[in-house]
Amino acid sequence: MTISFPKDSVGLVIPQTMAFNEPLMLVCGKELAAGYQITYETYGILNPECNNAILICHALSGNHHAAGYHSYEDRKPGWWDNYIGPNKPIDTNRFFVVSLNNLGGCNGSTGPTSINPKTGKVYGASFPIVTVEDWVHSQARLADSLGIKQWAAVIGGSLGGMQAIQWAITYPDRLRHCIAIASAPKLSAQNIAFNEVARQAIVSDPDFFDGNFTEHNTVPKHGLGLARMVGHITYLSDDAMGQKFGRDLKNEKLNYDIYNVEFQVESYLRYQGEEFSGRFDANTYLLMTKALDYFDPASKHQGDLAKTLSEVTANFYLISFTTDWRFSPARSKEIVDALIAADKNVSYIEVDAPQGHDAFLIKIPRYQEALTTYLQRIAI
Amino acid sequence: MTISFPKDSVGLVIPQTMAFNEPLMLVCGKELAAGYQITYETYGILNPECNNAILICHALSGNHHAAGYHSYEDRKPGWWDNYIGPNKPIDTNRFFVVSLNNLGGCNGSTGPTSINPKTGKVYGASFPIVTVEDWVHSQARLADSLGIKQWAAVIGGSLGGMQAIQWAITYPDRLRHCIAIASAPKLSAQNIAFNEVARQAIVSDPDFFDGNFTEHNTVPKHGLGLARMVGHITYLSDDAMGQKFGRDLKNEKLNYDIYNVEFQVESYLRYQGEEFSGRFDANTYLLMTKALDYFDPASKHQGDLAKTLSEVTANFYLISFTTDWRFSPARSKEIVDALIAADKNVSYIEVDAPQGHDAFLIKIPRYQEALTTYLQRIAI
Repeated sequence: MTISFPKDSVGLVIPQTMAFNEPLMLVCGKELAAGYQITYETYGILNPECNNAILICHALSGNHHAAGYHSYEDRKPGWWDNYIGPNKPIDTNRFFVVSLNNLGGCNGSTGPTSINPKTGKVYGASFPIVTVEDWVHSQARLADSLGIKQWAAVIGGSLGGMQAIQWAITYPDRLRHCIAIASAPKLSAQNIAFNEVARQAIVSDPDFFDGNFTEHNTVPKHGLGLARMVGHITYLSDDAMGQKFGRDLKNEKLNYDIYNVEFQVESYLRYQGEEFSGRFDANTYLLMTKALDYFDPASKHQGDLAKTLSEVTANFYLISFTTDWRFSPARSKEIVDALIAADKNVSYIEVDAPQGHDAFLIKIPRYQEALTTYLQRIAI
Repeated sequence: MTISFPKDSVGLVIPQTMAFNEPLMLVCGKELAAGYQITYETYGILNPECNNAILICHALSGNHHAAGYHSYEDRKPGWWDNYIGPNKPIDTNRFFVVSLNNLGGCNGSTGPTSINPKTGKVYGASFPIVTVEDWVHSQARLADSLGIKQWAAVIGGSLGGMQAIQWAITYPDRLRHCIAIASAPKLSAQNIAFNEVARQAIVSDPDFFDGNFTEHNTVPKHGLGLARMVGHITYLSDDAMGQKFGRDLKNEKLNYDIYNVEFQVESYLRYQGEEFSGRFDANTYLLMTKALDYFDPASKHQGDLAKTLSEVTANFYLISFTTDWRFSPARSKEIVDALIAADKNVSYIEVDAPQGHDAFLIKIPRYQEALTTYLQRIAI
């Protein structure tokens, strides 16, 4: 029996790890010690002109594994495999795609689960706060190491879109296109509130031990599971949840039991929480929610987003989804309006999609078309 | 110094308690033992014709104390004091208003914090599941005891509105008007999902002890606080939170600290959670969320709400608020549409209000007018 991957897949992928010999000064005032590592994957081939590279930035719980398979036994491809591959919107026949795990992550790059070289112990709670700006600087160093002076495009959804926007602000000469999908120029009070609930769920778990749970040979599973449940609700639209589950019962009839699930949606959420808490690091989750909270590039210009974007040179492409209530179309339009006010090139599309925020990960014909058309026009 | 109450207040109120000598058969199949009690308050005077009585039904964390003050030292009046009092929309010069704490509650009526006469111990987790139907039956018994054969109106917001609707279905002859505010004919999958998060937060608190925390001399404060935080977010609109807090900082500048609050909205939410967990019972909270989940009167008619409402005789008045995303105007319109399809009398108003679901508790001129006008027309 021959096992093969789908034709439009990038196929078998081997993650790479790069170590950096200079410490990284962080926005929080602390320094990440020299020797920190970034794990990344690449798909496609860097052309001799080095002008066909695309950077993919991940969202809250994402990682470097955006496309392809890590083994022939892999049941699932990378998280954005719907959009990255030969003849897919981000066409690996044409582009050299780089996808990394951000610092503070728990999938290979230096983060709370890594050993702190200064103490010889796991960082745990002592890992410093990392911000979107820090990530962009670290990504720029990765680009340097890969010989990429300028990205054809930096692309990301949600928190990933914030990184793309920050790239255009921090390194205007180092990208030609900025594609921010289902993103926002900063979190709203409600967004922060949901993050705070998630954080409180984690830190109040008695197995959290102030973030040093590894030393206690435990994991704050309940807290992390709860955090994921809350997050998950905000990723789906009310309609999507209604269509998927409605009020369908778990069993044939109601049991009038307070502890067991009655409805399918409860069962689904519990599963999501449990599955996630078995594979993700609680300290990383805290860091990622904080990075979201802190992102607010316009704060350096008294909230004036147009002024903040006045030095960007990249062409912008914003995509939003009608039923996304985490980062609604209105949030993308704030960015579009600011870019227009700053006299910049910007295209915008609002995709009619019932899936809510999660739509940015899902195969949606109009969205596929929208990305394909834009990326095909990028000259290389 | 003379201390006095505002002129339009019902003034000093003394809660009453009534015990019932017959057991109450519950929808869940269990029986609430004879001797159960209901705590209630009344405002105004029952007229000789006994046709001016109005029943107020409370929402998730409400109780019998809807108006007036319990002492001269009380800083805050009852939860719906904005709407109940002399010359207020629910005018106590004209109506005799009855407000009770529902069974399963923790403010005087028999609930998880009460002693189970069969065991001599606190009910705790053993308190049976109570539904909106059960509450309506218990409220009918209270009405019998008070000599009220027919309510001029049954009024409630949110979960209280569900009770008003259930009254019209279960006891069509016993109310002339049904006023359901910011309500819904049943929970959506998203509504249930938020309730499930709240419940999981409570039951996973190690101080919960399977609901028998009283025996362990403890209280699941963290879990209950978290549940309240999640709930609170859904009570406010995104805009209301934005206007109230925006991204205002707690301190002068960011501290880049993962454990302490950075933003005012975090501080506010934590306070809400802590304050609530100090005064509310965790088992009651679980019961109330379950009562919400189970409410679905149309399920007896294969989901046909118009058929479910075919026997009602009350006049209906539905009120919703534009920015309410917990029970949006669309949910009230489902009820309006079903009533029209069933050829019933129904009036509906959607009030433009920025406050979200919480609007039903707040003094809003248009809403005050809407209630006043309707209630003035009720013949007594």
